[in-house]
Amino acid sequence: MIAMADPRTPRHRILGIDPGSRNTGFAVIDSDGHHSIRVASGCIRVGEHPWPERLGLIFDQVAAIVAAHQPHEMAVEQLIFARDPTAALKLGQARGAILCAGLKGGLIVHEYSPKSVKLAVVGTGGAEKSQVQHMVRVLLALPETPSEDEADALAIALCHAHSMGIPARKRAAASWRDWRP
Amino acid sequence: MIAMADPRTPRHRILGIDPGSRNTGFAVIDSDGHHSIRVASGCIRVGEHPWPERLGLIFDQVAAIVAAHQPHEMAVEQLIFARDPTAALKLGQARGAILCAGLKGGLIVHEYSPKSVKLAVVGTGGAEKSQVQHMVRVLLALPETPSEDEADALAIALCHAHSMGIPARKRAAASWRDWRP
Repeated sequence: MIAMADPRTPRHRILGIDPGSRNTGFAVIDSDGHHSIRVASGCIRVGEHPWPERLGLIFDQVAAIVAAHQPHEMAVEQLIFARDPTAALKLGQARGAILCAGLKGGLIVHEYSPKSVKLAVVGTGGAEKSQVQHMVRVLLALPETPSEDEADALAIALCHAHSMGIPARKRAAASWRDWRP
Repeated sequence: MIAMADPRTPRHRILGIDPGSRNTGFAVIDSDGHHSIRVASGCIRVGEHPWPERLGLIFDQVAAIVAAHQPHEMAVEQLIFARDPTAALKLGQARGAILCAGLKGGLIVHEYSPKSVKLAVVGTGGAEKSQVQHMVRVLLALPETPSEDEADALAIALCHAHSMGIPARKRAAASWRDWRP
């Protein structure tokens, strides 16, 4: 269903990002907190480029998306690793590049745990990737099933869009619940 | 001993960085590959600021150092973690912000393992922090013993300065020896 929002409700433009050191999913959606439409989505692929130039490319491409679509806020998936410190370190660097590009573009950054994101779009924190892809397609009335990275970015943007309807204090608590400083 | 370089030898300005999610040591040195002098050094402290704004501050401050001192190259300590993925993830994000600031400033980024850095300034890869602080003070004829973070950044810059005297192929091999993609 293509969203038919009340034209009196101000629309909010959200950039959702699923960080990766090789592939970073991105999604720009417009939402009034209840109905959302996709503006743009895709995947930033930098796996072929040498390290650390890859980080500069990720930064540039996120900055270009911000400049092109002028989102109001950015929502990024939190990364919670329990096993592989080497992968965590590399992914952390890509995430640092992404967050810097958003912050330098003047965006407020929100972080959501993978569990919160799945809960927001599928209704269960333990959903499979394919369920996320399916539900994102349904919720945004997309003509095609998005790729995994793209679907994750759309789901993160939708998670933030849905949280806009929740009072600020509860939203902050939900957003930061799984954050470990 | 204050370096008295041959004025015909082109001097090279190096920015050394010891990344941290709270305290990031930085050092700018001029070197001809054999003799080096300190231009500036210090510590970027962002521990009081909330996350993720902290990343934007690190990016801004490194960018300001690059703009003020116009280094030719950047040398950053590699982070090799074996124990704590959560710390690796947070430190990785700070490192991503630092590398982006260097890359956006047009710098070539070199990475050195902690072992290579200690070997370059103390002569043993297993040196204590206090030995690094002492040797950095001696090598750069500093009037004071630098703080740990500052000494690490100076040591990284010196490690890169020393590697400039090594032929390019051997240097590349040494620089990337401990890198795990």
